[in-house]
Amino acid sequence: MAELVLQTRKPCELLDITDLIQARIPNDLACGICHVFCPHTTAGVTINENADPDVRHDLLAKLEKLIPRSEPFYRHCEGNSDAHLKAVLTGFSVVLPVVNGSLRLGRWQGVYFCEYDGPRTRRLNLLFQRAEE
Amino acid sequence: MAELVLQTRKPCELLDITDLIQARIPNDLACGICHVFCPHTTAGVTINENADPDVRHDLLAKLEKLIPRSEPFYRHCEGNSDAHLKAVLTGFSVVLPVVNGSLRLGRWQGVYFCEYDGPRTRRLNLLFQRAEE
Amino acid sequence: MAELVLQTRKPCELLDITDLIQARIPNDLACGICHVFCPHTTAGVTINENADPDVRHDLLAKLEKLIPRSEPFYRHCEGNSDAHLKAVLTGFSVVLPVVNGSLRLGRWQGVYFCEYDGPRTRRLNLLFQRAEE
Repeated sequence: MAELVLQTRKPCELLDITDLIQARIPNDLACGICHVFCPHTTAGVTINENADPDVRHDLLAKLEKLIPRSEPFYRHCEGNSDAHLKAVLTGFSVVLPVVNGSLRLGRWQGVYFCEYDGPRTRRLNLLFQRAEE
Repeated sequence: MAELVLQTRKPCELLDITDLIQARIPNDLACGICHVFCPHTTAGVTINENADPDVRHDLLAKLEKLIPRSEPFYRHCEGNSDAHLKAVLTGFSVVLPVVNGSLRLGRWQGVYFCEYDGPRTRRLNLLFQRAEE
Repeated sequence: MAELVLQTRKPCELLDITDLIQARIPNDLACGICHVFCPHTTAGVTINENADPDVRHDLLAKLEKLIPRSEPFYRHCEGNSDAHLKAVLTGFSVVLPVVNGSLRLGRWQGVYFCEYDGPRTRRLNLLFQRAEE
């Protein structure tokens, strides 16, 4: 199992990790799957547009409006219940197709680490599997 | 890797693709996984009720209320930031169990392509893997 | 394919199923994946904090505020459209890394069955796969 170590810089941030993942894919993986797994509870991993950075701004801005930092009914004493919920909604893993040792993403897709309670040092696990060709 | 090509007809739509996926599953896959991967950033794939079409209406109607097309703080010039966020929340892949060459879904489950910025021609990738029996 | 049978006790509930999953993992799975698949349409499965139960309270309370039980535009006659949408947003499967026969989760992670329309008897399917080491 491979591991990526990431340093986030802001409370909420979408970090493009596409190239970091690509660098770890075994060259001899002709057809398969890369599983990216996030072992945290206030961060996640997703896929989205790799071109206009305004998309990332808009995603985080709207999530913040839907799920603000504090609510009168929150009980969790650490004050980061919003980050837990954002992570649940984004998800903790992505499944990525691999062909001939390369990620086979869509033209506009990048893979993003979603920091919702940073800045922190974070880790991601990568697992590779062969598929039927 | 198999590919499905879909033509959506509306701006937002849930297309039942269960039978299209079933038709591509190798007959000799005794026990395994079908990965369905969406290579787009304003569309996704999910699972939900295959009986009453009102469920699909309600899902899209509520998503539209939560995440309307425009917000004063959106910056992305294409005007489809809502579609990007809906896709992030729905997810870009599903994992489906396969037994004896057939999808093993729950009784009320169907697989749906989620169009959030249509109508467009869309593609889905399918990957098959064996599992431990 | 292994199966877990669960009895939920409340309309909405997050049940910790980490130990139930661990008990089914083959001892000889040195490096692999456990797929947990939910065959229902008003329940899901996710990962989150395994320490403070207030996190679970806050997750369900905020979801309830975002997606209340009834909306004037809902058409589905069973009255549980909210449960369908919550399940779509949470997701119907999780992918869990396995090393030497044990789940390799993050320090604060547990796996949760998400009941959104209970109480009911529910089932979960588990599939195991080897990965490249």
